Amino acid sequence: MADANVITYEALVARVGRIFLRHGVRPESARVLGRVIAAGERDNCQSHGIYRIEGCLQVLAAGKVDPVAVPEIHDAGGPVIEVDAGGGFSNPAFDAAEGVLASRARETGLAALVIRNCLHFSALWHDVEALAAEGLAALSMCPSYAVVAPAGGREPLLGTNPLAFGWPRRGGHPYVFDFATSVAARGEIELRRRAGAPIPEGWAVDRYGNPTTDPEAALAGAMLPFGGHKGSAISTMIELLAGAMLGEFMSREALEVIGGAGFLPRHGALVLAFDPRRFAARSGRDPLAEGERLLTAIGAQGARLPSERRFAAREVALRDGIALTDAEIAQLDAFETR
Amino acid sequence: MADANVITYEALVARVGRIFLRHGVRPESARVLGRVIAAGERDNCQSHGIYRIEGCLQVLAAGKVDPVAVPEIHDAGGPVIEVDAGGGFSNPAFDAAEGVLASRARETGLAALVIRNCLHFSALWHDVEALAAEGLAALSMCPSYAVVAPAGGREPLLGTNPLAFGWPRRGGHPYVFDFATSVAARGEIELRRRAGAPIPEGWAVDRYGNPTTDPEAALAGAMLPFGGHKGSAISTMIELLAGAMLGEFMSREALEVIGGAGFLPRHGALVLAFDPRRFAARSGRDPLAEGERLLTAIGAQGARLPSERRFAAREVALRDGIALTDAEIAQLDAFETR
Repeated sequence: MADANVITYEALVARVGRIFLRHGVRPESARVLGRVIAAGERDNCQSHGIYRIEGCLQVLAAGKVDPVAVPEIHDAGGPVIEVDAGGGFSNPAFDAAEGVLASRARETGLAALVIRNCLHFSALWHDVEALAAEGLAALSMCPSYAVVAPAGGREPLLGTNPLAFGWPRRGGHPYVFDFATSVAARGEIELRRRAGAPIPEGWAVDRYGNPTTDPEAALAGAMLPFGGHKGSAISTMIELLAGAMLGEFMSREALEVIGGAGFLPRHGALVLAFDPRRFAARSGRDPLAEGERLLTAIGAQGARLPSERRFAAREVALRDGIALTDAEIAQLDAFETR
Repeated sequence: MADANVITYEALVARVGRIFLRHGVRPESARVLGRVIAAGERDNCQSHGIYRIEGCLQVLAAGKVDPVAVPEIHDAGGPVIEVDAGGGFSNPAFDAAEGVLASRARETGLAALVIRNCLHFSALWHDVEALAAEGLAALSMCPSYAVVAPAGGREPLLGTNPLAFGWPRRGGHPYVFDFATSVAARGEIELRRRAGAPIPEGWAVDRYGNPTTDPEAALAGAMLPFGGHKGSAISTMIELLAGAMLGEFMSREALEVIGGAGFLPRHGALVLAFDPRRFAARSGRDPLAEGERLLTAIGAQGARLPSERRFAAREVALRDGIALTDAEIAQLDAFETR
């Protein structure tokens, strides 16, 4: 790989931002999208990196997302803050409201952010990491597209419904998990289909509800939730809390409205922020020091913490730059000129 | 079974309450304990029914719980309400604070209850069902005893850490799940040990970290979280949010402090209450009607909703009474006279 393919994180943020600007996205939003996508590349999460630009441009071209939407914050001073993305991307809406959410959580211990009416394409770790950087614990969830059958069922009804959690650690990366509540991500089945490889048992059922290891049959059928009926229950909770409760789309309606899983999904999201110092105050204990006792003990057993690989990749990328493939460079060039 | 063994729910509440009164528990708390234990029997959750009285009397006799503790509510008017159980049982503390929690959630959309310094023995569905009956969604979690190894680890560090969720349904039982984040409940391994039966693969590792199907080796080793690294991450989150964040014991300290898994555990708990009507207000949608679309569609696939069996048992018990075994009757008699 030539050195010319190595780009700094900051330069990639700017370059991706310019692509969105060129495609009509307002500057404030284009900058946020550039940051989110460059962060995916930086953390070696390629499925949320440059790869995503295509899907974003597709929804822009199809008029499924408003490129100049200005997020509108509704804050009555209570624990529930709302931001209406106005049919734009979710990340600029979160970005606009994050300061209010963090301040409210610090003032009173607990606050929630409702993100409405947005096109959602990014991982949720961005949100919980941003809050962890402010010393807050955070829980984030959203529906997606109905491609998962409930445990014991056969038809797609639930989304891959991601759940993310962040917990601040002093002088280090936060504890962060962010995963789909399906056994696997839909992209992993798609990759196996392209490679002509079977999928593991337990990932999916075919359209008749029978277990299958054929990626084609799985994509025509339904994926399964992780962890059997427990994971199915958690996925259902996400539909209820981050869909029905907000009056935003659940996964089935999200799919119906946008007209097929070929497009990025449109729905809401729920982010809860907790201030551990406020919650622990009456105990006289230091909640972050307590958290460290657990997290270091997990590491001492040789068990890996979630996101460790991502943080390791980030450190390398911030030090040495992000090495893009020739294909990625060509893609960026094409996006900038088309 | 003789008719003499059939008892109404209300009579069982009173009878169990009298047992606790007789063992020095203050009347208000004895009544709550009677209700919780009778509800376990009523719902055919025998592991949380009369069976639990023995363990409660044990901690009372050992001085590990304060029978006359009066729960003390700390409410600064914000979204986080605290109740100090004063070393008593958790249920009377929740009972004392539930009204404040529910009112706060209805006023502002979101509120949390921190339960401190309590002996915990009951299922969490009691709490989320009580809130669902008030039209609120609720999420409840707590640590327990360190008997579960993190995914990829080998030593007990996490508890069976239950997670419960409730969602109100008009004119019917709420959507409720309540499960251990371990693959199985510890009691299920204990039952197999007594029966001389093996446990399924994937439930536990022995003390050397090797997979085992021997219940004895499993009890000497560590149980495993449900759903691999995802379940392990959720269990870790519960330790952090309902242990470290509150400044209350996490599962390892809970075990160390009380001196062995033979006693019921002592720790805190976190309950979040959401008012769907407030969260949905700006959307113009009816959140409970939206929730029904999902829940009825799950049922229409022939998939069972969590707690369905429990609610069916409850309906039978409330109509026909609760049929106790001769052994249970004898046990109640013995508790009342000893």
